[in-house]
Amino acid sequence: MEAHSHADLVPHSPRRLHETWILDHLRRQGRASRAELVAATGLSRATVSALAGELLAQGKVVVTDVAQPTAPGRTPQALALNPAAGLVLGLDFAHSRVGVVVADAAHAIVGSATRTYASTTPWDTRCAIAVRLARKVLAGDAPLAAVGIGIAGSIGGRPAVVDAIRDAFTDAFGVPVRTDNNARLAGLAESVWGAARGGADALYVRLSSGVGGAVILDGRVHRGRGGTAGEFGHVCVDPAGPLCRCSNRGCLECYVGVEAVLADSGAATLADLLSALDRGDRRASAVVTAAGQRIGLVLSGAGNVLDVPHVVLGGDLTVLGEHLVRPVRQTITRHLHADRAATVALAELGDLDGALGGVALVLHDPSIPFTGPLAPRHLTGTGTA
Amino acid sequence: MEAHSHADLVPHSPRRLHETWILDHLRRQGRASRAELVAATGLSRATVSALAGELLAQGKVVVTDVAQPTAPGRTPQALALNPAAGLVLGLDFAHSRVGVVVADAAHAIVGSATRTYASTTPWDTRCAIAVRLARKVLAGDAPLAAVGIGIAGSIGGRPAVVDAIRDAFTDAFGVPVRTDNNARLAGLAESVWGAARGGADALYVRLSSGVGGAVILDGRVHRGRGGTAGEFGHVCVDPAGPLCRCSNRGCLECYVGVEAVLADSGAATLADLLSALDRGDRRASAVVTAAGQRIGLVLSGAGNVLDVPHVVLGGDLTVLGEHLVRPVRQTITRHLHADRAATVALAELGDLDGALGGVALVLHDPSIPFTGPLAPRHLTGTGTA
Repeated sequence: MEAHSHADLVPHSPRRLHETWILDHLRRQGRASRAELVAATGLSRATVSALAGELLAQGKVVVTDVAQPTAPGRTPQALALNPAAGLVLGLDFAHSRVGVVVADAAHAIVGSATRTYASTTPWDTRCAIAVRLARKVLAGDAPLAAVGIGIAGSIGGRPAVVDAIRDAFTDAFGVPVRTDNNARLAGLAESVWGAARGGADALYVRLSSGVGGAVILDGRVHRGRGGTAGEFGHVCVDPAGPLCRCSNRGCLECYVGVEAVLADSGAATLADLLSALDRGDRRASAVVTAAGQRIGLVLSGAGNVLDVPHVVLGGDLTVLGEHLVRPVRQTITRHLHADRAATVALAELGDLDGALGGVALVLHDPSIPFTGPLAPRHLTGTGTA
Repeated sequence: MEAHSHADLVPHSPRRLHETWILDHLRRQGRASRAELVAATGLSRATVSALAGELLAQGKVVVTDVAQPTAPGRTPQALALNPAAGLVLGLDFAHSRVGVVVADAAHAIVGSATRTYASTTPWDTRCAIAVRLARKVLAGDAPLAAVGIGIAGSIGGRPAVVDAIRDAFTDAFGVPVRTDNNARLAGLAESVWGAARGGADALYVRLSSGVGGAVILDGRVHRGRGGTAGEFGHVCVDPAGPLCRCSNRGCLECYVGVEAVLADSGAATLADLLSALDRGDRRASAVVTAAGQRIGLVLSGAGNVLDVPHVVLGGDLTVLGEHLVRPVRQTITRHLHADRAATVALAELGDLDGALGGVALVLHDPSIPFTGPLAPRHLTGTGTA
């Protein structure tokens, strides 16, 4: 949470405030039609049209096509922040690879790349690899506005490493740099571009060796007091359960982390487990169903407390597909209160989710000015992996 | 959640925006010293001082004493919204009584009253009783800015009744009227005036026959998609548990609602149960400890997902005091992840909590203009129960 909340503003200068609502929505969503802006801001159609006209005249926004035409033969127009406001660089330092994404202010991805490294690679080498990769994707001449970096949870607890990463990118690019947990950023990215896109509120759970996640409320990552919200993996599901690596007992992760699921099922790898599931193996099915039910129970609890309409499952365990999603969905449906419902979907963004979340992190950060144009010339840089 | 979020505003007009941060903070917190405004907004001391000077000159804020002097012999000054901006009326329609509170824009309570009624009293009669009581507390001549009304959860599901209540107060006072679930409003009030005051984030659980609650994030009630967030009572604690009145299985309420606790303990009333606990009765102690552990488990789960520093327990069951609080606190401490901590405290506001929450509801609602002065004259009206 930020120290200052601007959430319930007293509307002193309505026109100015309404303009910020529109720009804020575009900054979060990338692009939006006038009708979407009416729905999102609660302003009248006339007000939105008038303000959009002014913002266009000022060069703060541009007209663009909506991502997906709503009907054949019709290409509705959308507004987006002026891409000339500069590019944003998103990175994800995962355990054995770094992912890089470059996007413009209209949320268009202009390039991406990934590089693997050995788990023994020292951090200064990893940073050098990542900076080089980023420069390649940026293609040299584009104005960069900010850098957002996702960092694996296990590293996030080491402030010296986080500082080294931040310094390396500040030195290399001379723009604001922000960092966050990469599972939380993956959840944010899913809420902007992925399985929960367009939904302001979502729960994201990443199911790999560790189990983490993100709570997205009102289009923002909810961080909590200590910045560590989203610890679905350490919700207790049995107070008498086994000791977790976190030193508490009976955490969800003890039961549904990849290693625990493999051990319970007797499969050597997730691929083997999936094969067993596909051929109807009873033990495999029972183990994965039980894991899905536990995940669903934790998520239904969070759903009853938060009344959130979207659940997204990511991480290595999701290669099990519907074998996993079905029991999660059934359990959530069974235990959500009254007539609530929540969609349960697999994450869609793959390996670049954390880097995309880095892009969203800085696009959503109000302390980074990002309503161009920053530079008089149009952007030319694109890059590929 | 509101349809439009203004949470991550792009700072277009910093001066204007900073002014709204200060007014917004005062509107939520009632009064604040300049130092508190610096801490809450992230603005510099110089900026806060300059803006405070302007707001004082415009009559939007006034200088007042802080509620509690921080050291003997020293009376720090605080800023508050101008009380002349009008009064706010808060009401709470509980099962067998209505509570009324009148407060000014500086969050000062200028009067309060309660009236009981038979559970068979028709709604138009209840509304007439409440309007009469409110007029008495308002004492006739004060300008009223808005009305906020808490309504028991069992009634909230009956839209016709909610509409009738809203219409009765709109007709009677001709000002904006807002309604919400009274357990949620009680939680909001505890975060403004009660056990979690000054804390922006808190979980509130009301433990009576039914078990409900509120999630306060960043000083606001989190409502969720359908407006029903905070259903701690219907978080499943055992999928194979008994059928709940909500038609799901194993909900927390089945185990820790007042009737369930009394039945398990063999006590006829909560007073009897408290006596048994005070004299060390083993069965009573085991039952209340088990209830506290279940409550703690649900709250630690929410705490791990949300990373919230304050937990407040309210409702009839809290007459059991530390007998109940201790196992809740121990269980939360045991299952919160890593080095997190949360305070666990009893609610402090008593029977007027819901009505106070009604006051906070409208003070926090940005769609109600409330930064006077509304009227040239100063207020004279006060009332008593």
